[in-house]
Amino acid sequence: MRKNYLLTPGPTPLPPKVSEAMSRPIIHHRTPQFQEILKEATNGLKYIYQTQNDVFILASSGTGAMEAAVINLLSAGDTALVVHGGKFGERWTEICKAYGINAEIINVEWGKAVDPSEIQKRLKANPNIKAVFTTLCETSTAVTNDLEAIGKVVKDTPAVLVVDAISGLGAIDLKTDVWGCDVVVSGSQKGLMLPPGLGFISVSPKAWKLCEASKSPRYYFDLRKAKKAIEKTDTPFTPAVTLVIALIEALAMMKEDGLEKVFTRHKKMADATRAAVKALGLELFAPSAASDAVTAAKLPAGIDGEKLVKTMRDTYGITIAGGQDVLKGKVIRIAHMGFIEEFDIIAGISCLEKVLQQMGHKFSLGSGVKAAEEVFLK
Amino acid sequence: MRKNYLLTPGPTPLPPKVSEAMSRPIIHHRTPQFQEILKEATNGLKYIYQTQNDVFILASSGTGAMEAAVINLLSAGDTALVVHGGKFGERWTEICKAYGINAEIINVEWGKAVDPSEIQKRLKANPNIKAVFTTLCETSTAVTNDLEAIGKVVKDTPAVLVVDAISGLGAIDLKTDVWGCDVVVSGSQKGLMLPPGLGFISVSPKAWKLCEASKSPRYYFDLRKAKKAIEKTDTPFTPAVTLVIALIEALAMMKEDGLEKVFTRHKKMADATRAAVKALGLELFAPSAASDAVTAAKLPAGIDGEKLVKTMRDTYGITIAGGQDVLKGKVIRIAHMGFIEEFDIIAGISCLEKVLQQMGHKFSLGSGVKAAEEVFLK
Repeated sequence: MRKNYLLTPGPTPLPPKVSEAMSRPIIHHRTPQFQEILKEATNGLKYIYQTQNDVFILASSGTGAMEAAVINLLSAGDTALVVHGGKFGERWTEICKAYGINAEIINVEWGKAVDPSEIQKRLKANPNIKAVFTTLCETSTAVTNDLEAIGKVVKDTPAVLVVDAISGLGAIDLKTDVWGCDVVVSGSQKGLMLPPGLGFISVSPKAWKLCEASKSPRYYFDLRKAKKAIEKTDTPFTPAVTLVIALIEALAMMKEDGLEKVFTRHKKMADATRAAVKALGLELFAPSAASDAVTAAKLPAGIDGEKLVKTMRDTYGITIAGGQDVLKGKVIRIAHMGFIEEFDIIAGISCLEKVLQQMGHKFSLGSGVKAAEEVFLK
Repeated sequence: MRKNYLLTPGPTPLPPKVSEAMSRPIIHHRTPQFQEILKEATNGLKYIYQTQNDVFILASSGTGAMEAAVINLLSAGDTALVVHGGKFGERWTEICKAYGINAEIINVEWGKAVDPSEIQKRLKANPNIKAVFTTLCETSTAVTNDLEAIGKVVKDTPAVLVVDAISGLGAIDLKTDVWGCDVVVSGSQKGLMLPPGLGFISVSPKAWKLCEASKSPRYYFDLRKAKKAIEKTDTPFTPAVTLVIALIEALAMMKEDGLEKVFTRHKKMADATRAAVKALGLELFAPSAASDAVTAAKLPAGIDGEKLVKTMRDTYGITIAGGQDVLKGKVIRIAHMGFIEEFDIIAGISCLEKVLQQMGHKFSLGSGVKAAEEVFLK
């Protein structure tokens, strides 16, 4: 009789239309019928990406698409500038290292956004930097970086700007073309309301020049193969058919609302969640750069974050995320992206109140929910 | 009002339990609940693989798992022996080349199985060969190689035996451990009755030694990461949650029948299909090594294979496969693996009869279906 809520930053809940699409009889991928779907999916992604660049659908998780970005752009011995500041920024460096690419690192304090002028300074100091790797929403800290400002400082340099938008795409604004994001990587299981299993990657003309020159060994993630295939409305290898079919349902839902409405909805849920946790006496982990896709809140001394998350999930059926790496046990993360809406947030906050009370944290019961309601009423 | 039949060698039709599993509300992957599923899926795969070796589930298509095999085992400059004889055997060479690995090729005529003594000869002639790459069922030609015999000639050499069992696993017998198949690669969308999107790979202790020594750059497909993660019942990157959940349903169905019954069923369908096409006056493409997973038949002069496949699919709703590469237009391929049973084959043969008659091929109407029925009655 337990009803489960998923308020995690990936996977996010599936809309009924998406679930239904995946359960339809499967079709073969080398058919005119699937070609129509592939075309619709690619065009829908371009709308969400706000781009005229090529966009490819990979059968992989988001990390596979990140690897595709690194190896198609750079070769062993090349230098990249990587913005750290969370687990996923650091992943760019791990991938670069695996391929012998030098990573110059900008260390940003966890919970802060990168200062675009620091990127500018580093690019000026080393004109050999071929790519800047950064993150739209750093899921581990719930920080959103200012990609518009970063785009401005990278645009007129020889470097390409590469954005991990796995968390964030379809939840917060990312003007790929206007802001000059040359390569944008994403995944299916966050803002796009699908199960994990698809990776996405866009490639600008500036980035294609690097792709053609890259000597990194590659096969499955070789974007030259993907480009050659998509010109015939095909994929180089068997696509994840059911997920691509579900993708067009999710994209249609987003297009029906329109991007502006989608972003406004996410902003409102984020405002409500932030107001709620503050009303409960918790401090935001990233007050200066809080993401509209996920909220991280510090836990008071004496409250064990792992136990809190476990109790909410195993006793009450509401799954939020705890902290990762150095933040383990110290923060909670409540997602508000994709197919999560107002009353999911209310349920999540109510459950948080219940368990915080049980764990001995002092606050006025109902104050979190009330603060969220006030935001939603506006 | 059209009812569609899928008789293609991947994707194959989805059992209702599989479809239903994918449409359930999604769960988070870092939970005890998903850990149970991952454990069950891994153990179930070991049963199908007939192995005690490690087996990993990747979020990729089968080709991703093939790449994982190559790059985890070998480094640039190493030498591999690759069995050609179809599109998928050749893929091993393409991947090797992409990573600077020398491929010594055994060219087998399309439609024939490789002669194990040829492998033995080549291994003796070049003791530097570190790995032998071959195929269980070469989907492009509908040939099954004799892995038991190949295993015997590779076993006592320093080389490891690597098998592409993407097509064939769960349809025809593959005794991974008994036959000495060190690395076996597979995919979800064929014998395992799932949509595409999962790759599988098993690794023997002999193969692990090469994995530890390989210098090929790798990250997403790094099996050392996968091994470290599975020791904590985890995956290094976000798994394709819904497909893994569906996998345990498919594996349970197969375990309920038992492998022997599964293989007998496939053998019977293959016998029926072969009898049917022969009764229609078509010649088997691979009479000496015909696969029990898929049947390829040559078309009579004057019958355009592409038109035949297109008419069966677009006019009558029955999808079979045509020929690939050099066989384009010259053969048809009818799959009989996974969730395909007796009366699907009857429907497929009946439709083939209908379109062959319309295209002017002379034969006695009903003779194909009758030949199949005779086999099924036995």
